[in-house]
Amino acid sequence: MQDNKNIVFTGIIASSSSLNDLVINSGYIAVQDGKITKKGSAEEFDRLEKSGEFSNFEIVKLSPDQFIVPGFVDCHTHAPQFPNIGLGLDRPLLEWLAKYTFHLEKKYSDTEFAAKVYDQVVKRLIKNGTTTACYFGSLHVEGTLELVKSAIKHHQRALIGKVSMNKENFAGYYNETKKELEEVETFIKHVISYQNELVEPVVTPRFAVSCDKELMDGLGDIAKKYDCRIQSHISENTSEIDYVLETNPKCKSYGHVYDESGILTNKCIMAHAVHLTEGELTLLSRKGVSVAHCPASNTRLKSGLCPVRKIINANITVGLGTDVSGGDNASILDAIRRTMDISACLEMRGNDKYALDWKEAFYLATLGGAKALNLDHKIGNFDVGKDFDALLVDVYTKDGQIDKYEGTLQSTPKEYALDLLQKFIYVGDDRNIVQVYVKGEKVKDAL
Amino acid sequence: MQDNKNIVFTGIIASSSSLNDLVINSGYIAVQDGKITKKGSAEEFDRLEKSGEFSNFEIVKLSPDQFIVPGFVDCHTHAPQFPNIGLGLDRPLLEWLAKYTFHLEKKYSDTEFAAKVYDQVVKRLIKNGTTTACYFGSLHVEGTLELVKSAIKHHQRALIGKVSMNKENFAGYYNETKKELEEVETFIKHVISYQNELVEPVVTPRFAVSCDKELMDGLGDIAKKYDCRIQSHISENTSEIDYVLETNPKCKSYGHVYDESGILTNKCIMAHAVHLTEGELTLLSRKGVSVAHCPASNTRLKSGLCPVRKIINANITVGLGTDVSGGDNASILDAIRRTMDISACLEMRGNDKYALDWKEAFYLATLGGAKALNLDHKIGNFDVGKDFDALLVDVYTKDGQIDKYEGTLQSTPKEYALDLLQKFIYVGDDRNIVQVYVKGEKVKDAL
Ligand SMILES: [Zn+2]
Ligand SMILES: [Zn+2]
Repeated sequence: MQDNKNIVFTGIIASSSSLNDLVINSGYIAVQDGKITKKGSAEEFDRLEKSGEFSNFEIVKLSPDQFIVPGFVDCHTHAPQFPNIGLGLDRPLLEWLAKYTFHLEKKYSDTEFAAKVYDQVVKRLIKNGTTTACYFGSLHVEGTLELVKSAIKHHQRALIGKVSMNKENFAGYYNETKKELEEVETFIKHVISYQNELVEPVVTPRFAVSCDKELMDGLGDIAKKYDCRIQSHISENTSEIDYVLETNPKCKSYGHVYDESGILTNKCIMAHAVHLTEGELTLLSRKGVSVAHCPASNTRLKSGLCPVRKIINANITVGLGTDVSGGDNASILDAIRRTMDISACLEMRGNDKYALDWKEAFYLATLGGAKALNLDHKIGNFDVGKDFDALLVDVYTKDGQIDKYEGTLQSTPKEYALDLLQKFIYVGDDRNIVQVYVKGEKVKDAL
Repeated sequence: MQDNKNIVFTGIIASSSSLNDLVINSGYIAVQDGKITKKGSAEEFDRLEKSGEFSNFEIVKLSPDQFIVPGFVDCHTHAPQFPNIGLGLDRPLLEWLAKYTFHLEKKYSDTEFAAKVYDQVVKRLIKNGTTTACYFGSLHVEGTLELVKSAIKHHQRALIGKVSMNKENFAGYYNETKKELEEVETFIKHVISYQNELVEPVVTPRFAVSCDKELMDGLGDIAKKYDCRIQSHISENTSEIDYVLETNPKCKSYGHVYDESGILTNKCIMAHAVHLTEGELTLLSRKGVSVAHCPASNTRLKSGLCPVRKIINANITVGLGTDVSGGDNASILDAIRRTMDISACLEMRGNDKYALDWKEAFYLATLGGAKALNLDHKIGNFDVGKDFDALLVDVYTKDGQIDKYEGTLQSTPKEYALDLLQKFIYVGDDRNIVQVYVKGEKVKDAL
């Protein structure tokens, strides 16, 4: 028998099939070579187990207070900024970049330093249940390749971009255009050469403030040539928007600056989108661009309250991002809660039905994120044929934040399962995530 | 030598002397019989230690990544609602009370049940660093006395109220006026009879929706008679305000309903105050009433965005409350973060300078809360003569959420200390709170 290659999980299983459909019940999921090969009800499991169907499987029977959910998808975070998490959040975006961020990111020219930090970053995200992350690296090819190596080493699913910038800044943190375009291709080829199915390169213009049209055009071409995903930032902060419009006087909106360079494709994910105009919403929707909603950093840097309901209603695919270190929390559980918070704030300030409930936010953190990253054919829920990226959650884990109060919850099994999931979403943390699986491999085991 | 009666702590120490003055440096605090008897700089400590001044003391030398801060003060939480934490947050206030809350609170007529739950509640708050809590109990005298006993048992500083309600509701969860007033006196006398210096009774009209004028008048009299603190709720939600004004047609505001019954005194703390009028702000300020700001429940129940900066500017003393289970988090660290969040949201929506920074929010969680509860002569910071209620924080504690990245923070000792405190405030959790002291006694030890 191959170790851990065939596993069947039985107990409470929850996942989303759409924004408004949470599926939660007692059942089983059979995993072979990392893929979901069969699933069904608890009764079916009992029948199949008796018939010997799973004789070749490791059988994981969950306790009544445990459940399985899809792994979390972080659609936007900055690996090199993790050492600054929780620091320097007293400035708006452009000042914050200049004062704290570029200074730190420059250090990743030191490959050894990069290797050390990125090893901690990837482990931290896995610990928090992030099975897939879409990362910004730094300007450096070698440094960012260390992030690729860390993801591969720890078996995390990762989309990784070497950051592109060619506009001069006081920190001297940019490249000349030609060098930059060459380095992006070098980076992409290197990542492809690893032939690791979990890790892919992403073309990553930092944002229109840092890249001129020549570089942006070149990056659009490279993305096309290698059929790569593209990631960037859009409309995070009003000063940023003003600057972009001033420096691109022929463009009628921030979105059009990207569009002129062929950046807006159905393989493009844009972070923030806090202040999009109606015209930009239509543009992004038409081009199939996705949005990474990053509520933590939007609040911490006082960038704005992102109208995520409006973006969803414009038929734009949305996932969640932690955006460390503008964001101060590396956990997608926090992004779920802050998505509820910010959308509720907008509703309370007069925008009817803007609030997202916990089931909707959970969708964004899983299947929504998978769709936003064009990975929903592989991950996001437990459809047969997808890879098994999942969290085993123990609600009342020892030393966690959730207390078990005997004799208080009185409900049907279905209601009880919903209550468990709710408690985890609102009150849980990494301690409740006792196991993490990526493509069927256990990458965290705290059981 | 008496065990643990004389202790001296040396290392980084941080506390607030006012909203805008955070004092942080390397020094020492000497504690004798629970009280702070001496403090000073690190150099003074070295000198005194050599001279034998502390020969009779247990000496606790902090590591460079540890520090001491005042214990957190939770100005408003509902102990009987803890089993519902993270559940049923899909309704606005009045529906939520009727559907989820009264049903659960009624169970505390069962004293054994009450004892079990309250034991968990007090331990949970201590684990999160809450050295002082101002609690709502339930309608029941015996049940709420179990909360008093739990606080005494675990040596938590606690202000505890038996909840008063006399208006009929569908849950049958209220008392007739005469019975209620008798029971309140019974409860107060009982608590006084324990002669425990950490625990005091609080007169606790639930809110003007649940109490008529006769009961409110009686409660005002009882508070006067026993020189008790009073706690209640005010202006949490607009439907609540409408109801209160409808049922009190002679009163020009919610605040005046309380004032007519002598409830508004300088020993009164009101939770929420989300929608106060200018007239009410003036009234509360004039009467010396304090406010418990509860951002978590205000957002979760979509009650509103409390303009905490405006309340502070109206010269009203403000502390923070978790307001479980309208609030979904039992930790004051979370209340600190959400105070920053909500005030930043108000600033982003056009209210200039409304955002509170982390130092201001930290003040509210410590000295602000102590003032709000009329306990600042005893706790809130480390002035000589106060009781030693404190947290020993280890920023890089094993298995916590804060990673130590070597070679990233380059700063002076002062900046380094500020960075440590910031990391804890933004990213830390109960795991970083490795020891908790109340009046010099160690009530949590995870070192
Ligand atoms: Zn970003
Ligand atoms: Zn309350």
